[in-house]
Amino acid sequence: MGIEMEQPCVELSKVAVSETHGEDSPYFAGWKAYDENPYDELTNPSGVIQMGLAENQVSFDLLEKYLEEHSEASTWGKGAPGFRENALFQDYHGLKTFRTAMASFMEQVRGGRAKFDPQRLVLTAGATAANELLTFILANPGDALLVPTPYYPGFDRDLRWRTGVNIVPIHCDSSNNFQITPEALEAAYKDAEAMNSKVRGVLITNPSNPLGVTIPRSVLEEILDFVTRKNIHLVSDEIYSGSVFSSSEFTSVAEILEARQYKDAERVHIVYSLSKDLGLPGFRVGTIYSYNDKVVTTARRMSSFTLISSQTQHLLASMLSDKKFTENYIRTNRERLRKRYQMIIEGLRSAGIECLKGNAGLFCWMNLSPLLGNYKAKGSRELGGELELWNAILHELKLNISPGSSCHCSEPGWFRVCFANMSEQTLEIALQRIRDFMERIRTESV
Amino acid sequence: MGIEMEQPCVELSKVAVSETHGEDSPYFAGWKAYDENPYDELTNPSGVIQMGLAENQVSFDLLEKYLEEHSEASTWGKGAPGFRENALFQDYHGLKTFRTAMASFMEQVRGGRAKFDPQRLVLTAGATAANELLTFILANPGDALLVPTPYYPGFDRDLRWRTGVNIVPIHCDSSNNFQITPEALEAAYKDAEAMNSKVRGVLITNPSNPLGVTIPRSVLEEILDFVTRKNIHLVSDEIYSGSVFSSSEFTSVAEILEARQYKDAERVHIVYSLSKDLGLPGFRVGTIYSYNDKVVTTARRMSSFTLISSQTQHLLASMLSDKKFTENYIRTNRERLRKRYQMIIEGLRSAGIECLKGNAGLFCWMNLSPLLGNYKAKGSRELGGELELWNAILHELKLNISPGSSCHCSEPGWFRVCFANMSEQTLEIALQRIRDFMERIRTESV
Repeated sequence: MGIEMEQPCVELSKVAVSETHGEDSPYFAGWKAYDENPYDELTNPSGVIQMGLAENQVSFDLLEKYLEEHSEASTWGKGAPGFRENALFQDYHGLKTFRTAMASFMEQVRGGRAKFDPQRLVLTAGATAANELLTFILANPGDALLVPTPYYPGFDRDLRWRTGVNIVPIHCDSSNNFQITPEALEAAYKDAEAMNSKVRGVLITNPSNPLGVTIPRSVLEEILDFVTRKNIHLVSDEIYSGSVFSSSEFTSVAEILEARQYKDAERVHIVYSLSKDLGLPGFRVGTIYSYNDKVVTTARRMSSFTLISSQTQHLLASMLSDKKFTENYIRTNRERLRKRYQMIIEGLRSAGIECLKGNAGLFCWMNLSPLLGNYKAKGSRELGGELELWNAILHELKLNISPGSSCHCSEPGWFRVCFANMSEQTLEIALQRIRDFMERIRTESV
Repeated sequence: MGIEMEQPCVELSKVAVSETHGEDSPYFAGWKAYDENPYDELTNPSGVIQMGLAENQVSFDLLEKYLEEHSEASTWGKGAPGFRENALFQDYHGLKTFRTAMASFMEQVRGGRAKFDPQRLVLTAGATAANELLTFILANPGDALLVPTPYYPGFDRDLRWRTGVNIVPIHCDSSNNFQITPEALEAAYKDAEAMNSKVRGVLITNPSNPLGVTIPRSVLEEILDFVTRKNIHLVSDEIYSGSVFSSSEFTSVAEILEARQYKDAERVHIVYSLSKDLGLPGFRVGTIYSYNDKVVTTARRMSSFTLISSQTQHLLASMLSDKKFTENYIRTNRERLRKRYQMIIEGLRSAGIECLKGNAGLFCWMNLSPLLGNYKAKGSRELGGELELWNAILHELKLNISPGSSCHCSEPGWFRVCFANMSEQTLEIALQRIRDFMERIRTESV
């Protein structure tokens, strides 16, 4: 960084020197390998293909078309009308037009089967901030949140780093397709108690990242009953709810609360974002929807640390208020994701690889446990060769995928593979590399 | 909020139920009174005039003109070129063009007397987040930061609420024009020790909010010597550095570090923002500039919780890269602020009111201590009638100004009065109300 200086000696905080930020995991190491040698059809055809990034690029043309036809949404135009008010707007309630449009978009995504009151919507700069903010509100340092495994690696940072809260895993495995059971919930609760950590809530992702499946209504009912019995919170992170391939296959916790006439609803909080369903992670738009008045008030005050740019609120208020646009977008996006999913699933199957049956998200959950035998000798007993296999895929196949262990999966051999952040052509190249790899393994095994 | 529910019984965290968010102070109560009855020349001429909001509206026409002439900066245009890359951009390093332009703008504001390396710049959604983020990095819960009084009321929230850190006041008073002295620094340090709170740093605002004055170079040198001797940090919040009426009257800590050849620089961190100098609080653009490598790395990771919209980075990268625009803006803005300042100072003087001699900011520091006698009987001994006087000004004069006590001023009778968030006409109305008030008091006293 240019400037010469003596060795720093002034002390930093425990948070600053802790490793809870989680950036040293294979999840991020794979990203680095990609950054150093990124695949490009023309200039670097043997480079690393990024399949570790849950980014939605399949429906960008729809957004671009909207912007082209509605330049008033992003320009300030002659005399920049509205610019002054917009630039000065820093009320933590957010632009009313935007909050209303967001609530309505969340209803649309749920097929109109749940209602959202804009007054209960708190805006944050991304779901990362929303999840941290809720953790600050629900739990004290040393307390625990129960989170089903496998889970999004970023939670290790978001829920723990600055809050000092613990994540206690609810272990799920392939014996029942990674579904959460009452027994697993109870076991996790007991684990936390054994650690002397007070359980404050359960955090689920529905649809699940990394599984790419929705949580069945009956399982959601059991989870709600569990948190009610224990008198703890339920955070339902539903940032992939618009990325379910068929709207009818998704049940939001909001629908169940409505069916229960909002009895005990004050323990439930939903997280949403436009980063995945609309493919706008750079715009930093997240939200917390809470059924608890005190949480709404407190989260809104706390959102001062993580407000959304009023310029971005202004643009998205226009876009999301346009019902014709949103209806078409939601439908088309679902269809395209399903098509992509089928393409990768069939490609993998033709290579002899099975995935967990998915119905949502930007990734599939790939089972490579049959290959572990080839790598086990070099690997730790616990992971049974998973990281060695991952390493081979990254450095020989030049594919960056995320090992299950980075998602705290308790069963080795599973990998998250993203399919919506590239073109069909690139996906086809990736599948060809996998087919070649499997062919080589079969040949070697003979 | 519409939905009927039982009384919540599920517990929230200590942070959630604490009052450290500070919204119950007169500082915010005055805002509420304004919101309920806002002055408008035509529709509500007897309403409350907002003089409690440090907002810069005097140079908006320059920004509007820029946007009018450079629509490419805000529109995505035909085929929305660049939209895709921009919307997906969520690297916590920020857009390189924007970081470079910000560093260069910070140099310009300092008259080229300090250099800023874009690689040391960390972006955050506003200075609010920047100050909290630094506190998380520099101090543990229960530790202390020393902050000169009077200080910005928001610090009670920003530095303390989620971090659990204490603010220990460095008491300054009118006997030496509220300057920070080595004795006051030592006394505050001893106060913290007596509370068993480990001192981690000093946080100054330069120019000072609420005083509206720059810190003299000699005082800055003393503060730097103090933090070096104690081996603690120095945070210099310089968000009003572009609002100094004459560039030559401002010394940034960056200039002193340069003169000292960056010896011991690793304990120094500068906070900046575009909310005040450019008048864009809604866009949420803050930054931390640290001379400490570990702080830079950690702050960047932590900025994941508070990233700036890539759309906004894109617009401002254009604007701030335009040297002709920025030079003209900085010069014109300084001139206009000085003119406004002179207008209010002279108006108050004609009413018989003196202010601390200021040279920066969007406010003046008004001395109403001669009036306290009229209100003392009704007031607490400590504040000597200050809040009763404030209340009369808010409800009789219909002016929202901020009492010194909300800024933790240890001497009663001082008030912060903002002058840049309204037209000259409105400011003239406010001054007329004050003149009438003073006239009435003089008549009553006779």
